[in-house]
Amino acid sequence: MRGIVNEDLVDLTGETAANLELVAATPSSALGSTRDKPDRKYCQEIFRVVQAHGIDCFFYIGGNDSADTVRIISEAAVAAGYPLRCIHIPKTIDNDLTVNDHTPGFPSAARFVVQAFMGINLDNASLPGVYIGVVMGRNAGFLTAASALAKRFPDDGPHAVYLPERVFDVDTFLSDVKNNMERHGRCVVAVSEGIADHQGVPIAESLSKQMEKDAHGNLQLGGGALADYLTQLVKDRLNYKRVRGDTFGYVQRSFAGCVSDVDQREAREVGHKAAQYAMSSDRSGSVTIHRTGSYAVDYRLSPLVDIAAKTRTMPDDFIAGSGTHVTEAFHRYLEPLLGSGLPLIHRLRSPAIPKLLKPD
Amino acid sequence: MRGIVNEDLVDLTGETAANLELVAATPSSALGSTRDKPDRKYCQEIFRVVQAHGIDCFFYIGGNDSADTVRIISEAAVAAGYPLRCIHIPKTIDNDLTVNDHTPGFPSAARFVVQAFMGINLDNASLPGVYIGVVMGRNAGFLTAASALAKRFPDDGPHAVYLPERVFDVDTFLSDVKNNMERHGRCVVAVSEGIADHQGVPIAESLSKQMEKDAHGNLQLGGGALADYLTQLVKDRLNYKRVRGDTFGYVQRSFAGCVSDVDQREAREVGHKAAQYAMSSDRSGSVTIHRTGSYAVDYRLSPLVDIAAKTRTMPDDFIAGSGTHVTEAFHRYLEPLLGSGLPLIHRLRSPAIPKLLKPD
Repeated sequence: MRGIVNEDLVDLTGETAANLELVAATPSSALGSTRDKPDRKYCQEIFRVVQAHGIDCFFYIGGNDSADTVRIISEAAVAAGYPLRCIHIPKTIDNDLTVNDHTPGFPSAARFVVQAFMGINLDNASLPGVYIGVVMGRNAGFLTAASALAKRFPDDGPHAVYLPERVFDVDTFLSDVKNNMERHGRCVVAVSEGIADHQGVPIAESLSKQMEKDAHGNLQLGGGALADYLTQLVKDRLNYKRVRGDTFGYVQRSFAGCVSDVDQREAREVGHKAAQYAMSSDRSGSVTIHRTGSYAVDYRLSPLVDIAAKTRTMPDDFIAGSGTHVTEAFHRYLEPLLGSGLPLIHRLRSPAIPKLLKPD
Repeated sequence: MRGIVNEDLVDLTGETAANLELVAATPSSALGSTRDKPDRKYCQEIFRVVQAHGIDCFFYIGGNDSADTVRIISEAAVAAGYPLRCIHIPKTIDNDLTVNDHTPGFPSAARFVVQAFMGINLDNASLPGVYIGVVMGRNAGFLTAASALAKRFPDDGPHAVYLPERVFDVDTFLSDVKNNMERHGRCVVAVSEGIADHQGVPIAESLSKQMEKDAHGNLQLGGGALADYLTQLVKDRLNYKRVRGDTFGYVQRSFAGCVSDVDQREAREVGHKAAQYAMSSDRSGSVTIHRTGSYAVDYRLSPLVDIAAKTRTMPDDFIAGSGTHVTEAFHRYLEPLLGSGLPLIHRLRSPAIPKLLKPD
């Protein structure tokens, strides 16, 4: 979008097939990204450039904000009487697009979260204590919930997941941690960055306000604040010695070398379908992914207004009654998306040697 | 150690070869870990259990603290006239053992850091700004320095690395960030959690003291504080809009599925060598790794006192004169350790389309 407004255009037909394949296997957006949101003036600038270069197809890759951008451009084109097909191609690790079964980017980020919690669970098992991992996803808990698929043995973590779809209550959280510590001698939890209180105010936002009010000196709220707050809370209120917290941050959405092959194939297919729709019809729309089997998908061109600026959250049947676990339905939903070759964790099953000195 | 004191022993000969192979491919310590440090009473308890079970070989896996534990036990055994061979087997992601060329665990953690910074660099390139990644290593900068091997194109990040081996000066740091922003329009830096000021006081520790002094309410210093502090510093002092920071945390040392095959092979070999040394000699000692070619290694049984409680830091010839880059020598040192199949990042090389409306 910013590239069009600035008339920074590149000729992708000048690429070699070999390099395009290599770029396709590279994380992140090779064409760049922007947080710009077009207003009327921005749209006029876009049309000037589009017209000057005789562009008649506009493809835009992203989430619900990007779909909304495509909607705005598309409606502006109609209003201006300019024949521009506008096609939104889905991509967001948040997995929060309506109409779609899931969105490209999410399966690979979910795979990262699963592999991360596999390791975290083992690390925590070898040096027992409380571990709190904060995962991306402000409105939708899909990525946080993915951590549940790291479990292999019944006592593996994460022992609880905290999603933005359910109210986050500090006392319930502390009592969950306490119960798991008593049961397993350790506790691993996954927390969405978007968890919110009874009033719907995100905990991270309350922390931010509290911090602003209190601020003196250089220390202010940053990316790691939610994990640090929850870690300190457990230390202060439950008095456990070893309490650790991490914020997964940008690594979870960009890590080179952790990719779901299913995701990779579908990410390519939604682009291919977008090109086909653009060539075979004169409709604008959003390419959407629909599950048609176990596991198979099909693609459609859906109306932009059905996706633009809308948010899909975890459906109730993916969340356990307790609110802090996922259901079998979620396992069945996510498993095929994670792709092939997922590592499996194993443990010793050695028989204990009878005690000679210190019988239990 | 804790297992011996509590007489929690397992019979590893009761394992199947198949399961041992699976556990060998699983991150973390399958036998558990402890932060206990033995004093005289602890040693007496250990001897009671060792004698009761007729144990004559003690193998202990870990870093310089673990080597020191083995030294203490070994000397106590000699003093007690008990024939116990004590062998330390090296393992630490910090890579900070003397005598050794490198230590098992480090190459795989380094590979994680490399792959993480590959992705982070691309993420930052697509949405330009400042990114600060805080990496483990309190005294030695090896793991932070590893991030430099994520660079492929000349303008790739990390654009600077901040190591505990060099003084961290806030003004120099800010001026480095500013220079990179002016040069590349973006800036990615890797920072060791152990960076320290002119007096040798770790920045994280000063933050902790500052915070304690200021503390009211629940917000206190936690795992993400150093990244948050540096991020806020850049925002406040340089006024850039997009400034992000992450603390890599426990994921970097435990992530399932990111392993150097060289590391995996050597980790197994140091164990095998330890068993051979125990069977063929009556010496106690530490198994050490020595580079003998490019790339090949050999193993020796070195005196415990040469490794125990000693810390090796990055040698000067691995650190560039600027203090914020690594040298070719470090690249040559680390490259063979990272193992095979490292992902490579690629970028578009598309020719620009001539501007029609907005000539530069």
